Amino acid sequence: MSKNCSLAETGELLKAAKKLVIVSHVSPDGDTLGSSLALMHALRALGKDVIMNVDDDISTVYSFLPGIQEYRRFGADETIEADLLVIIDASSADRAGNAMEVVRPGAVLNIDHHKTNTRFADYLYLDSDAAATAEIIYALLLEMGTEFTTDIATCIYEGIYTDTGSFKYSNTTSKTMETAAALLKHGVNPSLVSDNMELRSRSQVEMLRKVLETLTFLKDGKIAYIEIAPELYDRNVDTDAFISYPRYIEGVEIALLFKQPEENLTRVSFRSKEIDVAKIAVSFGGGGHKKAAGCSIYAPMKEAEKIVLQAVEDLFV
Amino acid sequence: MSKNCSLAETGELLKAAKKLVIVSHVSPDGDTLGSSLALMHALRALGKDVIMNVDDDISTVYSFLPGIQEYRRFGADETIEADLLVIIDASSADRAGNAMEVVRPGAVLNIDHHKTNTRFADYLYLDSDAAATAEIIYALLLEMGTEFTTDIATCIYEGIYTDTGSFKYSNTTSKTMETAAALLKHGVNPSLVSDNMELRSRSQVEMLRKVLETLTFLKDGKIAYIEIAPELYDRNVDTDAFISYPRYIEGVEIALLFKQPEENLTRVSFRSKEIDVAKIAVSFGGGGHKKAAGCSIYAPMKEAEKIVLQAVEDLFV
Repeated sequence: MSKNCSLAETGELLKAAKKLVIVSHVSPDGDTLGSSLALMHALRALGKDVIMNVDDDISTVYSFLPGIQEYRRFGADETIEADLLVIIDASSADRAGNAMEVVRPGAVLNIDHHKTNTRFADYLYLDSDAAATAEIIYALLLEMGTEFTTDIATCIYEGIYTDTGSFKYSNTTSKTMETAAALLKHGVNPSLVSDNMELRSRSQVEMLRKVLETLTFLKDGKIAYIEIAPELYDRNVDTDAFISYPRYIEGVEIALLFKQPEENLTRVSFRSKEIDVAKIAVSFGGGGHKKAAGCSIYAPMKEAEKIVLQAVEDLFV
Repeated sequence: MSKNCSLAETGELLKAAKKLVIVSHVSPDGDTLGSSLALMHALRALGKDVIMNVDDDISTVYSFLPGIQEYRRFGADETIEADLLVIIDASSADRAGNAMEVVRPGAVLNIDHHKTNTRFADYLYLDSDAAATAEIIYALLLEMGTEFTTDIATCIYEGIYTDTGSFKYSNTTSKTMETAAALLKHGVNPSLVSDNMELRSRSQVEMLRKVLETLTFLKDGKIAYIEIAPELYDRNVDTDAFISYPRYIEGVEIALLFKQPEENLTRVSFRSKEIDVAKIAVSFGGGGHKKAAGCSIYAPMKEAEKIVLQAVEDLFV
């Protein structure tokens, strides 16, 4: 059980530490990366020794983020001493990868905005009203008196951009927009961010065309799903946006995407208009938000589809 | 040649008129519709007699816009008396359709943000720094002391959303974001707007899959284009977003989309990363912005492709 921190206490914890390890969650996205990097830039400007870690590969679409080259993966047999282990945008310990084993910290601080947070760290700053963890980081750095460089602003903007789907999702508030306005004043180039985030490889467009062939409807078109066949799966091709295709078809209430990255592992993404899909994802050991969630099923894709689709269909009985 | 108006003078012209016709441009998009409707709501709240006109069909994706049912097309033999004819977001007289023939106004007022504006009206309020005409309308209604209802705010938000590609394009400024923040405070539901704007029909997704099969690269992948075959063309299927597929492929500098709505008429859309495609579009009698433009060629698609692609390829010699 974590001790809840105020923003000021969180800032004090960070300022008191000399050596920090900042951890982004596995399957890293723009929010965990942008938030972590903004914090790194701010702490290094204060003369701190900061190590950046993510226990996963990082998609090349994030190459434009200032400082992204600082990330490294820890070997399982490594031991790293640190004053503070800071885990960003991860709602549970397993999302931190091997950092909790490798790092011997004075304390663990978790900064997050997921309401499904499991309170695994010593200290927790949780704001589940924040559209993105990056929105928290913006408030935190203001609190800490950070000088906002264009690099810091760009990293925070990236996090907000990612978790609001470029200001499209219902979590976008006037506060989100005011933060974005302030970040633009600090020199963020909005089309640099979006052009990079929208960028697709030829193979991605080619894969999209093939995946769209699998589009299937259930329950009179209220459920739609697509799948990335195992023989089509390529971990170097970013398919995160593919789920928007079933999601945004007229009449669809719940959209799903299935993919099989390993022989007995299926990853499922859920999106919905109104129904709480986090509940379904949590029931399969996953997590997420009301309208966007995910889980992993330790079974081949076709088997996983049967189980998950049954659970989703049962919602419409 | 138009008389340039200040925002205050524009407000005075509108307030002085009792009967107004508000015209959205042909091939109506979210900016011309949202801007026009916001102005309609504001003027009707002042007790004005307002007629809404667009000389074209309106896509069903705009059905959620408050007041959209007020639009009507004018018959060629109609005559309408009005104190003021207000033409919104149209850079030239032909974009207004038949309103300039049908309406006998005291004066014509044009409110626009296109730098290619041809100054065809009696009075012009032009701000080519505005991300959208809707941004001008927001400032105008503030100037006029309008009470912002959720309906007005939603219409303005729609215009900004459309012309910034949901805050992705380089025209997005801190002012844009501050305007969006203010509109959200007036009750705009951001996901209502985006969910409607993102909504696709099944046939649209099906068409996308087929159109992606036509994806062709020229000049070592610097040019990419797609085409909607005449036999696939369906005016009821919105294909505006299709050009983002060639546009956002790694290495592409200029993207094009060709479609043939009538036997001897080809419509061409241009998008670019840096190169000024408005110049090319204007050279074929079209218009637009530096990074997003369009033109019509009075020839079958294959013939139009030959001419236009040659002109685009010549840019890379």
